[in-house]
Amino acid sequence: MPSAPLPPHIVDFLRGPNPAVIASSRPDGQPVSVATWYLLEDDRHILVNMDASRKRLEYLEQDPRVSLTVLGKDWYQHVSVQGAVKLTPDPDRSGIDRISSHYTGNAYPDRKKPRVDGLITVESWHSWHVKG
Amino acid sequence: MPSAPLPPHIVDFLRGPNPAVIASSRPDGQPVSVATWYLLEDDRHILVNMDASRKRLEYLEQDPRVSLTVLGKDWYQHVSVQGAVKLTPDPDRSGIDRISSHYTGNAYPDRKKPRVDGLITVESWHSWHVKG
Repeated sequence: MPSAPLPPHIVDFLRGPNPAVIASSRPDGQPVSVATWYLLEDDRHILVNMDASRKRLEYLEQDPRVSLTVLGKDWYQHVSVQGAVKLTPDPDRSGIDRISSHYTGNAYPDRKKPRVDGLITVESWHSWHVKG
Repeated sequence: MPSAPLPPHIVDFLRGPNPAVIASSRPDGQPVSVATWYLLEDDRHILVNMDASRKRLEYLEQDPRVSLTVLGKDWYQHVSVQGAVKLTPDPDRSGIDRISSHYTGNAYPDRKKPRVDGLITVESWHSWHVKG
């Protein structure tokens, strides 16, 4: 798999508000995947954001390795990146609001539950049918 | 997370030819995710199919645990299942052809490269915004 930084055609693809799934591991090694919003920051970094109550955060503190698969408009276009995620609190909701605005045009509707930013540093990536 | 069998409303959701992502682990514990077609067999089993040359097959022989996230028509509907996958050769392409027909209406176009069936036995699942 190619290493970061992401090349321009992959950056272009990841800029869109695409459907995506993030995978991490439970302490027993069981992979767990869940749909997620994401926001490309630059050619090495992707932001995600989670409800602070998620058990997954505890697991990610122990093992920060994640994989993110982003789907395109048809069955054949997809990009996956692997890397490690760094968690930081999002007390003013600036992280989730930026991501929510990217997908919906609006700030995140829930203003009560604490949120956590997860900044993925991309280490490797692969793609199918995304043209360079 | 609830255990298998999958309840009827989740079975209904999974019956569609939906976008999906499967996650497994590399031997070093790095999660790896990739877009996939899938086919629900019954309330405990989901079929996927892979190119026999994939390195991932070797890893799945060592650690068959996977997670599959299936996306619905909007951002809020998704179902994830966790379980173990059993790999068997698909010499007559009956597996990939059933899955391809489900998604595209046609048999799988590539008739040369060997394929492998992966039958996931669902152990647990969770869903968002899929109504019962």
